[in-house]
This record gives sequence, C-alpha cells and structure tokens, in this order.
Amino acid sequence: MRVLGIDPSSQATGFGVIDYDETSYRVLAFGTIKPSRRLSFHEKLHTITTRVGEIIVAHAPSEVALESTFYAQNIKTALSLGQVRGAVLVAVAASGCSLFEYSALEIKKAVTGYGQAEKQQVNSMVKALLNIEEAVEPDASDALATAICHANTRSFARHLEEPGKGEEH
Amino acid sequence: MRVLGIDPSSQATGFGVIDYDETSYRVLAFGTIKPSRRLSFHEKLHTITTRVGEIIVAHAPSEVALESTFYAQNIKTALSLGQVRGAVLVAVAASGCSLFEYSALEIKKAVTGYGQAEKQQVNSMVKALLNIEEAVEPDASDALATAICHANTRSFARHLEEPGKGEEH
Repeated sequence: MRVLGIDPSSQATGFGVIDYDETSYRVLAFGTIKPSRRLSFHEKLHTITTRVGEIIVAHAPSEVALESTFYAQNIKTALSLGQVRGAVLVAVAASGCSLFEYSALEIKKAVTGYGQAEKQQVNSMVKALLNIEEAVEPDASDALATAICHANTRSFARHLEEPGKGEEH
Repeated sequence: MRVLGIDPSSQATGFGVIDYDETSYRVLAFGTIKPSRRLSFHEKLHTITTRVGEIIVAHAPSEVALESTFYAQNIKTALSLGQVRGAVLVAVAASGCSLFEYSALEIKKAVTGYGQAEKQQVNSMVKALLNIEEAVEPDASDALATAICHANTRSFARHLEEPGKGEEH
C-alpha cells in the first residue's frame, strides 16, 4: 500500500510518501511545501492545495494520513493552522484518497515508542526506520512519521483481520 | 463594481453578490452553502471550495469581501472555522478576484451604524438597504452585510481620490 503523510503548518507543510506492507516500509518521496513569502495569505493557501494535488497525482497514494488537531497554543495559531489544514483537506478530498487521522501522541509513539518525544528524536527515528541518510527537514520527518504511524496501524489491523498470517507455525 | 461577500461558518457559509456604485447598491444573488451532513468533514470543505468557485464563475465579481477573523470562542471553534475559511480562500485565490477583509465591528457599523449590533438587526438592515422582501438566512445576510461594508468603504475611498466628484456645486 502507498500512503502520503502530511504535516500541515503555517510556515512549511511537510509531506512524505511511503510504500508499506506487513513487514517493511520504503520511502518514495518527502519534502516541504513553502509558498513564496511574496504571496498573500490566500494565495499561499492556494499554492498548498495545488502542490498537495500535484504530489498526489505524481505518486498516486491510495491513502492520506494526517495528524488530528485538537490543540493549538492560542486562538490566533488555531485559526492560522486551521486555514492551512483546510487547504490541505480540500486537495485530499478532490483526489478521492482515503483519509486517516492520528493524534500527535500516536504518531510519536509509533516512531519513537514514546508519546512525548521531541521533534529531533522523531527526526532521527524516521531517518533510521526509512534508511534515509540525507538531512530531512523537521516538517518532512513529521509527515513521514505520520505515514509510518498509519502503516503500523493498518498492518496491525490487517494482521488481526487475518489471524495466523505472518505468524510462524 | 461587483462584489461577492462571504461569511464562512462551520454550519453554513453565507454568500451575497451585489453591484454598487457611489450612490446605490443592487443585490444580484444570495444564499448559503450547506454541504450534505452525510459527507465527511474534508468532503464538506471540498464542497465549499467548489461552490464558492461556481458562484464566482456564475456572477463574475471582481472583488471578494470577507470578515477578518481574529477571534473565536475557543481553540476547537477556531480550528474548525479556520478550516472552512481555508476552503473559501483557496477558491478566492484560484479565481484571481481581489480580496478585501473587514472586522466584524466595521461590518456591523456599516449596515446598522452600531458595531455591537445583533445578528437580527444586521438582517433587518441588510434587507432594508437592498430592498429584499423575502426571508434572508442569517449567514446570507452577514455575507451581504460584508459586501455592503466593502461597497461603502470603496465608494468612500474613490470619493476621496476624486475630490469634487459626486458633490453638488
């Protein structure tokens, strides 16, 4: 299966595409969407929608995973993050991909084993799990972490659905 | 000039299109966008983006006016409103219309003369100013109020730019 993880953020929206089956992951692409600072806010949102759409067309994932957001530092941050998230979700809905959401705790736990892990720990573990040697920007590693969390959750769910499969006898 | 006013809201996004010059307004269309309750949240956002795009194509405004949002009751409401606003702004940016934003206080003051006016007062004044006899849903009248606020602001700005014009001598 192929999943696109997205980490919407006002500054830079991270993305990461991985292929996964029950025993392994393979990274296909990752990066960040950083609209030009010369654009006005609504033009930046449009750039994000367009880029997410292009990434979906380029890599053809069947699933998209996002962090579910119930928290923000304050109202202003929540409004800003909400608008970016809206721009991302419009592109996901347009693509017809299935959408899955995970809490920050689930995502951090999936890659580091610890729900309160720091951004840097997530970054290191994502690189290790996906055998990425080059530098990965924090927003991109958060997006890849979301994709990994999804892959683990789905593989586990499938394992439960097909008892015996993958087990040694 | 023709302006589309939009009032983004999680429940129903109001819209209203008016033509205006320095002395009068004329209402062309108004209503609310209410995505089907059977849709998931991201599909609802996509419906909003699509409908706003269709309204812009149908009425060809050159300007879009929105309430600037710096306030929400709580983080959850802010995130929700932000996402709807993001969906609206993506459509506005895609259309190439000029975007103008006004505070809730400016909008209420423009139609009722009073910045703390109730929704019902706004509704009554919008109907009176635009000679609308039928019922107008509150979200639609808020959107029309935003369009009127824009029309007043622009007409006044133009009046200043062209001294003497429109004055009696």
